[in-house]
Order: sequence, then C-alpha cells, then structure tokens
Amino acid sequence: MIAEFENYLRRQTTLSDDDINRVIAGATLKKLRRNEFLLREGDICRHKIFIAKGLLRFFSVTADGGEHILQFSPEDNWMLDPESYDQQTPTQYYINAVEPSEVLLWAKPEFDGLLVSVPQLKLFAEQLISRSGYNNRQRLLTALSATPEQKYEDFVRTSPELLSRLPLRMIASYLGISLKTLNRVRHDQLLRS
Amino acid sequence: MIAEFENYLRRQTTLSDDDINRVIAGATLKKLRRNEFLLREGDICRHKIFIAKGLLRFFSVTADGGEHILQFSPEDNWMLDPESYDQQTPTQYYINAVEPSEVLLWAKPEFDGLLVSVPQLKLFAEQLISRSGYNNRQRLLTALSATPEQKYEDFVRTSPELLSRLPLRMIASYLGISLKTLNRVRHDQLLRS
Repeated sequence: MIAEFENYLRRQTTLSDDDINRVIAGATLKKLRRNEFLLREGDICRHKIFIAKGLLRFFSVTADGGEHILQFSPEDNWMLDPESYDQQTPTQYYINAVEPSEVLLWAKPEFDGLLVSVPQLKLFAEQLISRSGYNNRQRLLTALSATPEQKYEDFVRTSPELLSRLPLRMIASYLGISLKTLNRVRHDQLLRS
Repeated sequence: MIAEFENYLRRQTTLSDDDINRVIAGATLKKLRRNEFLLREGDICRHKIFIAKGLLRFFSVTADGGEHILQFSPEDNWMLDPESYDQQTPTQYYINAVEPSEVLLWAKPEFDGLLVSVPQLKLFAEQLISRSGYNNRQRLLTALSATPEQKYEDFVRTSPELLSRLPLRMIASYLGISLKTLNRVRHDQLLRS
C-alpha cells in the first residue's frame, strides 16, 4: 500500500524523493475489514487517513438511528473529521470501511512535524483543504436546491465509479433522500431510457 | 467603518498595532445600498470582503429562477467565493446586501502580499478557513438529516440576532424549505408555546 501512496504523491505533487520518504516514514499501515470502524462518535480524531485501497464512509447517526453519510472516500483520497482533528475534541461522526480497505495513518503530532519540515507538503495540504471546502459548498447547494432526480443524476455524473460499489441505501443516505424515493427515481430513469 | 474592523482584529487576534495598520492600509472602503450586488454569476471574485456594518447574503440562482442562500454574513464577518477567489475563475454565485452595509475590500494581490508580510494574519486566515469548513459541514449535515421543524429551531438557536433582520422568504431559502412550510412550522410553534 506504500507504493499506491508514493504514486499518488508523484502524480499530485512535486515533492522530492527525500521528502516523499520522510512523509512515508511517518505513516502507520492498517488493514480494515469490511465495516470496521476507524472513528466513532465521542472519539477524538487522532489521525489523518489516506485510503490506499478500498472505500471508507464518513457519517453521522441521528437520535432516531438514521445514518447520514456526508462523504465517501475511495482509494487515493483522504479522510478525517477536521474539527475533531484540529482541536483534538470529541467527534460527532463515524468513519468505517464500506469495503475491505488498506489505509495509511499519521498521528497529529507526526503530521504537524511533517508540515514544518516539508514546506511543499504544507502547500499541498492547503490545496486539499480548499478543494474539500469547494466540494462541501457544492454539496450543500445541491442538498438545498436539487430535486431527488437531479441529486441522483449529479451523483451518477460525478461518482460513476462508486455506483456499483455501494448498496442503494448508502447512496440514498448520501443524497439525503429515502430509499423508496431513490428506487422510484431509478425506476423512472429506466423507463425513460 | 475602520474602527469596527480595528476592534474586530483586536478582539480576535494578537496582531501588533503596526500589523493592524498594515492590514487596514490595504483595504478599500465601500458603502452598499440595500440589494446592491458585490458579485454576480459569471464575475470573478476579486476581493476578500469584511462586513463592518449591515448584512450580506451569498446565494445561487437555479435555472428555474429559485434563489438558494448558502450563507448570511452580518457585521464582523467575512464573505467571498473561495473557489473563484483562489483560482480567479468565474463564480456561479451572487453576493448582495440585505441591509444598507459598509464593507472593507482587499484585492487578491494586496491580500496575498499581506499574508506574506504579516505571518500572524496568515495563521488567522487559516483559522477562519477551518471554521468556515466546520460550519459548512454542520450545515450540510442539517440539510441532509433534519426535519423542517429541526432546521428552523436550529436557525433560531444559532442565529437569533438574524431572525428579525431577514424576510421570511430568505430564511426559508437558507433552510432549503418552502415559504409555505416555514409558515406552517412557525404557526405550529406559536400554538405550542
């Protein structure tokens, strides 16, 4: 799984070999079984997570037991609860593995040290935070303004590679619509096509 | 309006007098009439905006003419489209004044210069970006999971000072519910209280 991360850094950054080795040396490797948790409500988010293989989801559970998925992260993506991580306070979220997954973890003190010793990593991390901000804003706009049909079409367009990897109930939860509505939307689409 | 911004910086940061003066010297002052626009779809977001007095809103207009409000920014807050500002690309959003307002504007080249010459401002800007990220994530979770009743109660709890300053149709647009639903929720609440 180190090879995947190294390839990712070479594609996405201009970090030197030395810097790449420094970043890798700070990571811990972990394999996750399907449905294994990396974070539960009340925990402190102590690590930055990079997904080398597999698929994680980031979600909240409301008082009535409903799961609300804010984010999916497949391979070559990062995941964490920024607020809990930055401030080392208890999270209100869960992170678990939708598929058997392989991840790299950096504890906050180690990653903070890397941000100082590898200035290019700091720039890259800022870009990732910006991109995540854009995505969340776009997702908020969709949640506020789109019909269920538009939400589903948007998901098919932006995340086609996830469609076959996710149970429909998780897609419905991510879109903020009921499974019944999602089934209706998919059925209507089939009839039209 | 400079006095308001100076007080804000003294409360929120430990910037020196010299640094505060440097930041203020980079700003342009502008008064806005009610409903005056600072940004329209297709424009490039060229400035960071600080609201010294008044109230701005950040919104999108969908093809059917519907307005979807992502953010309100009253006095002592900032506003911009980060994606358009960072990358100097056309925005899909609008910013306008809900009340007659007074704002300070920094063009991107000037503000970028300040981030280098005033390292403490850079740290403060990173904190603001983080906070904005937490707020957007929280707002996304509410949009995905809450009932109209919960959305309205959440707004009353987190933004009580805005309630009397906003027309109901804007509150409905911000909550992602129809005006009819908002009126029903408010009516039911009155009957219960």
